[in-house]
Amino acid sequence: MNEDAIIRKLQRYAPLIGDDCAVIQAPRDQDLLFTTDFSIEGVHFTRASRPEQIGHRAVARSLSDIAAMGGRPLYCLVSIALTAWTDQRWIDGFYRGVNNLLRQTKTQLAGGDISHAKQLICDVMLCGAVAKGKALRRSGARPGDIIYVSGPLGGWRHKSEIVPRLEIGRKLIGKATSCMDISDGLALDLHRLCLASRVATEIDSVPLLDGATIEQALHDGEDYELLYTAHPKRRVPGIRIGTITKGNPGALRYHGKKLAPIGYDHLQQRS
Amino acid sequence: MNEDAIIRKLQRYAPLIGDDCAVIQAPRDQDLLFTTDFSIEGVHFTRASRPEQIGHRAVARSLSDIAAMGGRPLYCLVSIALTAWTDQRWIDGFYRGVNNLLRQTKTQLAGGDISHAKQLICDVMLCGAVAKGKALRRSGARPGDIIYVSGPLGGWRHKSEIVPRLEIGRKLIGKATSCMDISDGLALDLHRLCLASRVATEIDSVPLLDGATIEQALHDGEDYELLYTAHPKRRVPGIRIGTITKGNPGALRYHGKKLAPIGYDHLQQRS
Repeated sequence: MNEDAIIRKLQRYAPLIGDDCAVIQAPRDQDLLFTTDFSIEGVHFTRASRPEQIGHRAVARSLSDIAAMGGRPLYCLVSIALTAWTDQRWIDGFYRGVNNLLRQTKTQLAGGDISHAKQLICDVMLCGAVAKGKALRRSGARPGDIIYVSGPLGGWRHKSEIVPRLEIGRKLIGKATSCMDISDGLALDLHRLCLASRVATEIDSVPLLDGATIEQALHDGEDYELLYTAHPKRRVPGIRIGTITKGNPGALRYHGKKLAPIGYDHLQQRS
Repeated sequence: MNEDAIIRKLQRYAPLIGDDCAVIQAPRDQDLLFTTDFSIEGVHFTRASRPEQIGHRAVARSLSDIAAMGGRPLYCLVSIALTAWTDQRWIDGFYRGVNNLLRQTKTQLAGGDISHAKQLICDVMLCGAVAKGKALRRSGARPGDIIYVSGPLGGWRHKSEIVPRLEIGRKLIGKATSCMDISDGLALDLHRLCLASRVATEIDSVPLLDGATIEQALHDGEDYELLYTAHPKRRVPGIRIGTITKGNPGALRYHGKKLAPIGYDHLQQRS
């Protein structure tokens, strides 16, 4: 199967595909959100996974970034570098996984690129929208704010599927003082949020996924829950895990002890 | 050097980087254009190229798609999967190449992703804008229209650098009946344009790059000149290469003889 044949197949449900660019009507009085995430064989998934899962996961990672800003997803570009072992059946399964999640989240497939590589590589770009000036940022946490997560943690080992927290993200607009998604482990991501907000933090308790250890919850990647802060008087959904404090920007404490911002680093595997 | 250190470096000239998504103000009364292109070691370039060239080329390929729609570039996401041989000096050179071309074309770096792979892989997503409803498409060519290219052809072997034809693309708005860029060879790309427009074509003459053969001009990839059509009474810039005809959609003739739509196929190398 050649490139044009794959594109013709995709055009059946993605009418925006066909020109050199997708032409999109910009939403009125909204800010646009852009994000892009690689999914690479041996890094983010293994060849043993079902193609539907790989497709679902590739899109879910980018949708999680849109959720973290309080946005709603609009358009998606899916680029894929195929390998020797990706046959027609695999490609169909992959796009089935992609399309199921896009349909569930009302996101339109608008294009992408197709090539080949030694290992399977996928890059999903998502464009979303959020009310003007209202996007949730990492930088607004203040001392005294309460820290929350949207669900129990413990990473990819204990989770069958990533569910992007789009609904909860939208509910946090105008309420949370800061927000991001947990992709590289609670400790490293909370460190990043605190750096951006120039605050420190004290963690009291961490909700765990069934079977997960506290070590995994603190330092493993791939949770894709939201991590956010709010003023103590503000009622928000989620599970309370600690408090924002004054102190060295980025400094973490867990039960009174210093916690190292160790997590998943995409270049060093363990930073 | 870890992921966060690279991101901190990029933030010096790309202030939009830092949150889970880039937040962008949508241009008023314009359509948005989205495109994304892989640049893969061993497919689009070799390790022997200078990192500046690889960065320039990766961005130029996506800019060429914006040019083909008559758009102006606005925002760019650059994702890169590094390998064992990409050291700090290489990364700096790569982003120098990226940033020089972005600056020249007034395009803002808004984000991206960083990971690692067995071969160097880059994916550049570009967002551009064009006056509402005015984007140049592949589908508007009509029998009797003249076919043009924006410059001599013959592919990557005879060209040191890709120059995205943004200026000429914008000049064609409201004048050209169809447009695309030549990335996979004149024959295959003209075939695609004719399929989209449901017309056939007769090529009379093909302008060649110094040292290039007609075979290379017809069937090699990586020209990145614009290919477009206009009504015979309409004056447009460029070099005339033939005429749009009635006939089987997608059928090509060169000097009266049938021409096969053979070009660069990213999955089969030669389709």
